[in-house]
Amino acid sequence: MRLTAREIYDKLINEDRITELEGQIKFYLGDVSIIVKQRDVVGNIMQEWLHGWLDNNDIEYAPSENTQMPPDFFLNPDDRTVNLLEVKAFNRSGTPGFDIADFRMYQSEIIEKPYMLDVEYLVFGYDMSDDGIVTIKDVWLKKVWEITRRMEEWPIKMLHGSFDYCDIVDNANIMKEKSIILVGEPFLLDDDLRNNAIKWVERANSSDTACLDIV
Amino acid sequence: MRLTAREIYDKLINEDRITELEGQIKFYLGDVSIIVKQRDVVGNIMQEWLHGWLDNNDIEYAPSENTQMPPDFFLNPDDRTVNLLEVKAFNRSGTPGFDIADFRMYQSEIIEKPYMLDVEYLVFGYDMSDDGIVTIKDVWLKKVWEITRRMEEWPIKMLHGSFDYCDIVDNANIMKEKSIILVGEPFLLDDDLRNNAIKWVERANSSDTACLDIV
Repeated sequence: MRLTAREIYDKLINEDRITELEGQIKFYLGDVSIIVKQRDVVGNIMQEWLHGWLDNNDIEYAPSENTQMPPDFFLNPDDRTVNLLEVKAFNRSGTPGFDIADFRMYQSEIIEKPYMLDVEYLVFGYDMSDDGIVTIKDVWLKKVWEITRRMEEWPIKMLHGSFDYCDIVDNANIMKEKSIILVGEPFLLDDDLRNNAIKWVERANSSDTACLDIV
Repeated sequence: MRLTAREIYDKLINEDRITELEGQIKFYLGDVSIIVKQRDVVGNIMQEWLHGWLDNNDIEYAPSENTQMPPDFFLNPDDRTVNLLEVKAFNRSGTPGFDIADFRMYQSEIIEKPYMLDVEYLVFGYDMSDDGIVTIKDVWLKKVWEITRRMEEWPIKMLHGSFDYCDIVDNANIMKEKSIILVGEPFLLDDDLRNNAIKWVERANSSDTACLDIV
């Protein structure tokens, strides 16, 4: 069976009632078994859980070979330019802080594969009780421009390390505001970036505006 | 029952034969259960596992209230200056890269609590197969000066972030060489650090050398 990202979202919410389920992480080694109570672990395993869920529900997909870049799942294995799904998760009691992509890889890839801008982000807001009981408080289906926001200096929010601006990070205000990645702004720090942005803007300007579903 | 760090190490190795055990991390949410295959998760849960192991074996301890600083376990709850145990774990197929402590907290704490230098580090070198089977390849019991090493500029290996020198990290050559934290060397970057180092050296010089078990 093939489903779109939206159909998967609807099934999780309405059929499976995912926000009413309970879960747990267990670790055993030899005779000793423990309930894992580390909240940040959940963020890393929701993608693996969705693998299991898709399998359990006989929903077709091709997994991604590049774990560094979106998407995690090609929901149409015959056409890897449509119906792309990326899974993210964050502790609902805190602030979303997940990486969206390596910035340089991302800005380079959207030149060649502009359909990557259409990846659907399935975002889980989870909770873990002090006893280690995992629940899903919220689920969102968003586009990348709905989960990033402007920083003061840059058009998208980025974490920067010592020597490089490396990651696009999510929007702390995922529920509050929408913004769009503006290419051609002052984050164009070097010639490569600038050239890629110019190419991108050219392509964007020459594209069929009917394809743009930005409201 | 009370055991020393060395007795715990011996029991794990010789009685429990920990290096022959197999383990697994499982996560379920609703009807979907998966085997977690993320190697870095193991590093974070070996401390929780040791909690369970100590409980299963009726070994006394008081857990630490400050997760930022060593030790994880006070093995003599009546005297929190002796028999201190800290747990670390790293992927044995890679390079050890765990944090030992926040550097500024650590250098400040050893002034007031010089016995903290005697904390025993129980270090697990784990492996996870592609199927998610966890095994423990090696276990070490080390002092802090046995798991740090000199960097070119500093007497101990440190990770430094954008604005601060913040973490003492482990020795990539845990098996190869021994080195000692030398206080009074060029990592004395500001007055606080320098003053603390002077106090520390004064104390060290005035202490009973019979207490020092450094070979």
